[in-house]
Amino acid sequence: MNDFKAAMLNYQDRVRESFYKQGMMVHMGADVSEVRPGFCEVQLPNGLQVLQQHGLFHGGAIAAIVDVAGGYAAYSLFDEDDGVLTVEFKVNYIAPARGRKLIARGEVVKPGRTLTVTRGEVIAVEDDKETVCALMQQTLMRINGRDDIKG
Amino acid sequence: MNDFKAAMLNYQDRVRESFYKQGMMVHMGADVSEVRPGFCEVQLPNGLQVLQQHGLFHGGAIAAIVDVAGGYAAYSLFDEDDGVLTVEFKVNYIAPARGRKLIARGEVVKPGRTLTVTRGEVIAVEDDKETVCALMQQTLMRINGRDDIKG
Amino acid sequence: MNDFKAAMLNYQDRVRESFYKQGMMVHMGADVSEVRPGFCEVQLPNGLQVLQQHGLFHGGAIAAIVDVAGGYAAYSLFDEDDGVLTVEFKVNYIAPARGRKLIARGEVVKPGRTLTVTRGEVIAVEDDKETVCALMQQTLMRINGRDDIKG
Amino acid sequence: MNDFKAAMLNYQDRVRESFYKQGMMVHMGADVSEVRPGFCEVQLPNGLQVLQQHGLFHGGAIAAIVDVAGGYAAYSLFDEDDGVLTVEFKVNYIAPARGRKLIARGEVVKPGRTLTVTRGEVIAVEDDKETVCALMQQTLMRINGRDDIKG
Repeated sequence: MNDFKAAMLNYQDRVRESFYKQGMMVHMGADVSEVRPGFCEVQLPNGLQVLQQHGLFHGGAIAAIVDVAGGYAAYSLFDEDDGVLTVEFKVNYIAPARGRKLIARGEVVKPGRTLTVTRGEVIAVEDDKETVCALMQQTLMRINGRDDIKG
Repeated sequence: MNDFKAAMLNYQDRVRESFYKQGMMVHMGADVSEVRPGFCEVQLPNGLQVLQQHGLFHGGAIAAIVDVAGGYAAYSLFDEDDGVLTVEFKVNYIAPARGRKLIARGEVVKPGRTLTVTRGEVIAVEDDKETVCALMQQTLMRINGRDDIKG
Repeated sequence: MNDFKAAMLNYQDRVRESFYKQGMMVHMGADVSEVRPGFCEVQLPNGLQVLQQHGLFHGGAIAAIVDVAGGYAAYSLFDEDDGVLTVEFKVNYIAPARGRKLIARGEVVKPGRTLTVTRGEVIAVEDDKETVCALMQQTLMRINGRDDIKG
Repeated sequence: MNDFKAAMLNYQDRVRESFYKQGMMVHMGADVSEVRPGFCEVQLPNGLQVLQQHGLFHGGAIAAIVDVAGGYAAYSLFDEDDGVLTVEFKVNYIAPARGRKLIARGEVVKPGRTLTVTRGEVIAVEDDKETVCALMQQTLMRINGRDDIKG
């Protein structure tokens, strides 16, 4: 196995190891479905613990998973010893979030030594129909010499 | 009991009735601690289901409760038949969120027939120390003729 | 000339007619370089009146042209009698904005009867090099029965 | 004159010296009307170069002055050798901006070694009536060892 592949596996392991330590993500039932350099996808199945009062996914659940997807997208580009912190994000809700699961995608638009900027979207999957239900723009900060996400 | 007081109790009941139907808020352990016209406060005790991997409150939990606090602050000013929808919000994380509970406060800055704008903040309570850990700015939309929050 | 083409020319005329009435855009030296349904591009040549103290384009100029580009992207999809109002926008500055001109692009991501959501970016053109210097996410409101942009 | 007062005058001079080098602010006709530690106020008189097509202040002018007010609010707390950069900001337009002048106020909510968070508002002054027409939330970055604003 070459060094590049080793590094690749390494950051994927790091992302998942960190993710599964997040009590909130685990209790929500969220999972990391894809990690690539500068990209992370999180899925969230339907469940009472992530709904609002009309049986739609809760806006807070949508915000939580797309914030996390953006955070790990940034984290995937960092050195092993660095942590990541969400500085701020903004989310627009653009369609009702109904269906059997959500898919949140975060992507790095501008990596940086101190700050990284990502964009994200959340897709609601209902039967075979996919609807973009939220758009996100986010600023993250690299924490030198800490080995995990902080946000 | 005069009409004004009746209306006051009424909107407080409406907010709480709506809140307790939100599976996500209930599972997180959040509660509405105060509702006044144009203001809502939500509290969230510490618990594994709202933490990230370092024992701090999860950024997603912070975003969720301050979005909800802002939403009900707007909803408290609406007619009985109107619902409220979060159009968008932005949150800045300004301090680590540690302690025994969070207090999220949402306040209407600009009420409107169609759109309402709020600001919010989240306070981390640790022993006797209170620290503002997040700032929020939010846009909400009134949904005529529906009787509940939608976001 | 068929009806579709007539409508196309019509909205392009409407955008330009509105744009040139904006004292600020004219004084800045900005111009509309492209309008398509759901898309608008605004260009801004370098000039003292749009710079900050280091000879870079001013953040305020960047914000102004990308707000306008997003606004007209939405407006291009509206009926002739409707106006558009910026509800809110957020901009991330991701690189120094130097060069001979800026190109701001706004694109509708979610059109709507009441609210429209766009994303935008600003590109700094320096010799032959193009650098994305800002990212924008924006909410707009349709104003029924008014025939112009309001923001 | 004691050291504190000297430092105060010093940062006020630094803010004004930097401000007047901004071609955009000067051409718009904006001026710094107040600087205190963690606070800056910018005023903008009515003029064709800051209007949109209906004789209201342009949203871009509003965004520009409140971004600058927030930036100098942060800058006022920095060491003499530090510069400031706008990372991002978000603005909500909450009322039509008409009148003889605008007053933009920026205030530091959370100072920091690397990042500073501010909030701002813009007030439209029409005869004797003052109306808040915009709300802002902003993230700024300290640039060590540079002596001016960068944004």
